[in-house]
Amino acid sequence: MKKIFMDYASTTPVDPAVIAAMQPFFNSVFGNPSSIHAFGREALDAVDNARKQVGTMLHAKASDIVFTSGGTEADNLAIKGIAYQHLDDLSTKGPHIITSVIEHPAVLEPCRFMEKLGFHVEYLPVDNDGIIDVSHLEKSITKHTFLVSVMAANNEVGTIQPLQEIGAIVKEYDAFFHTDAVQGVGKLPIDVHKMNIDLLSLSAHKIYGPKGVGALYVRKGVKPIPLLHGGGHEQGLRSTTINTPGVVGLGKACELGNQRAFKDITYMQHLRDKLIKGVLAIEETYLNGHPTKRLVNNAHFRFTAIEGESLLLSLDDIGVAAATGSACSSKKLQASHVLLAMGITPEQAHGSIRLSIGRTTTEEHINFVVDELPNIVKKLRMMSPLWHQ
Amino acid sequence: MKKIFMDYASTTPVDPAVIAAMQPFFNSVFGNPSSIHAFGREALDAVDNARKQVGTMLHAKASDIVFTSGGTEADNLAIKGIAYQHLDDLSTKGPHIITSVIEHPAVLEPCRFMEKLGFHVEYLPVDNDGIIDVSHLEKSITKHTFLVSVMAANNEVGTIQPLQEIGAIVKEYDAFFHTDAVQGVGKLPIDVHKMNIDLLSLSAHKIYGPKGVGALYVRKGVKPIPLLHGGGHEQGLRSTTINTPGVVGLGKACELGNQRAFKDITYMQHLRDKLIKGVLAIEETYLNGHPTKRLVNNAHFRFTAIEGESLLLSLDDIGVAAATGSACSSKKLQASHVLLAMGITPEQAHGSIRLSIGRTTTEEHINFVVDELPNIVKKLRMMSPLWHQ
Repeated sequence: MKKIFMDYASTTPVDPAVIAAMQPFFNSVFGNPSSIHAFGREALDAVDNARKQVGTMLHAKASDIVFTSGGTEADNLAIKGIAYQHLDDLSTKGPHIITSVIEHPAVLEPCRFMEKLGFHVEYLPVDNDGIIDVSHLEKSITKHTFLVSVMAANNEVGTIQPLQEIGAIVKEYDAFFHTDAVQGVGKLPIDVHKMNIDLLSLSAHKIYGPKGVGALYVRKGVKPIPLLHGGGHEQGLRSTTINTPGVVGLGKACELGNQRAFKDITYMQHLRDKLIKGVLAIEETYLNGHPTKRLVNNAHFRFTAIEGESLLLSLDDIGVAAATGSACSSKKLQASHVLLAMGITPEQAHGSIRLSIGRTTTEEHINFVVDELPNIVKKLRMMSPLWHQ
Repeated sequence: MKKIFMDYASTTPVDPAVIAAMQPFFNSVFGNPSSIHAFGREALDAVDNARKQVGTMLHAKASDIVFTSGGTEADNLAIKGIAYQHLDDLSTKGPHIITSVIEHPAVLEPCRFMEKLGFHVEYLPVDNDGIIDVSHLEKSITKHTFLVSVMAANNEVGTIQPLQEIGAIVKEYDAFFHTDAVQGVGKLPIDVHKMNIDLLSLSAHKIYGPKGVGALYVRKGVKPIPLLHGGGHEQGLRSTTINTPGVVGLGKACELGNQRAFKDITYMQHLRDKLIKGVLAIEETYLNGHPTKRLVNNAHFRFTAIEGESLLLSLDDIGVAAATGSACSSKKLQASHVLLAMGITPEQAHGSIRLSIGRTTTEEHINFVVDELPNIVKKLRMMSPLWHQ
């Protein structure tokens, strides 16, 4: 049986060039980058180089890159790290965080935790395409707002957010602007200066790098309180022995991403559009998310009278890996908070799936899915009490 | 030039068998273990197996293992996670943490952060060999003590702590017992039940596994508040996409460690004793730490009238990698808090180095160091205004 991976928004295979770059750091250049002897210095050189590679991708200085264990840690460090600076103000000034209803749980859950501690958090709504309501941000932001966190692009439906517009507003109010760019990096042009971004999260395993490593861009002068206290690594912002192979892998993945950006984007957009066109030919099938302001690798559909879960399993049976919610919540049964926020009904939300493509997706994969999906949908609808025919 | 690594307490090379075990999970079995499709299920099987391997090493259930990004995160999760449960009691009950003066910064710094939040932390003293004063613990512990954190073995001088004795006392008071076993795992027999351990930190890269991964053993029923909020992974205790290759590497390293324990321990102890005997033949040279209750791979010396830093650089010049403090603080200039706590003067502390050995250390390495060190020490002393001859 063919095995076709169409879940690149969930994770990606590590690029062979990235694996090759990492390899020496497991067993040969294995020193602790904090050690001052030759073994340590060799490792540190590699870490420094990786820091530059990550910085370059964001138009940021190497010294503003803090390595983390992934996107979730980067998000938690940004939100809690900045919020903890305001613990003392809780009783008086009413310190205020603004985020959006469609953020990844790695942003939403830290925000909810901050609410428990007494912070006021406001969740911006989105329109039917999943785009943040910027006018709502303008109305909500005050001089007590110290942090605005809005993602670069949504992990489920792929809708791209107007970062530059948001950054300009946040700057006016002297708050910090954090963006979870885990899905956007490598697929969208990101410039932390132009966009007035103070903190930006990214993850290696979404861009053909290894799992277990990510980074937080922290603009010079911004000093989040660390989540990991200890030996004082990463300028005191994140203590722990640096994961040299992981960090080297992230650096190489960024370098490759930069080099390949145009080629990758053109290629994926072509395949995505073909996939969308093919799937929308099925009757009563609709695209979730913005038709054009969407990630080049994201296709997200809803099918009347079908359970997304059943569709997923049927696809799995023929070797195709897709997703219902995002991977991290794909074992949960509640309807996606993103789809609901876009005005999609719970029934329609449950009838939705995400097909996300990547560098190694081929025309043949797309053709296979476009050919097979109508039969699967037809079969599932025949068994559905909700189907009208 | 020979390159001789004698800094295994700082980090270890990844065992070739561990690298081989990790390899498929970068690019072949690369699915997100949280995904329900075939790619995800394959990865999850490997994660489940690794969880068992780690559990086995500690005589713990697989379900009580929470994967982390390393020892520092495990320590932070244990201390902050338990302390945060008591935030509401701060104004009334005077909730109380007990730790020791010689802990790793990954324990000390979170404790200091808790002090800033208003917790009372007591630091147990040690004797001249670096052993915790258990009678002091008995005097300090009260019904308001909710957490006692004492390391299994010290990272600098290698002194082994009486975990079982401590565990018994902590149990009497219904507090939680956390141990940072980053240095102890694989070199000491550890049984979380016998020792009444509720939380235990370990790190892969100290036991021939990869950097960037570790684990916290969390006894069933103990519910630390997470550091990383998000998608709800690791039973909600640590959200983030699981680092499949890293976790598989940690599991394999534990399995190997278990299999090789007797052989490794016997071998390292023989080499360590030879090293200690050889180095102590140099006049006015002393062993730091307990002569027998010490890690099998640790040798830690002080040399009258010598700067440890200069000694380290001279050794580096002939290809030998040693350490002054622990790697994480080896770029700092203050004298080791561990040595000072043991009653060693700042001058003597600055004249100390750690030589730590590992599986791949050979007799030849030991002979080389024992042959070369006297000349280096002699030369440095000739230049030292502190030397009396």
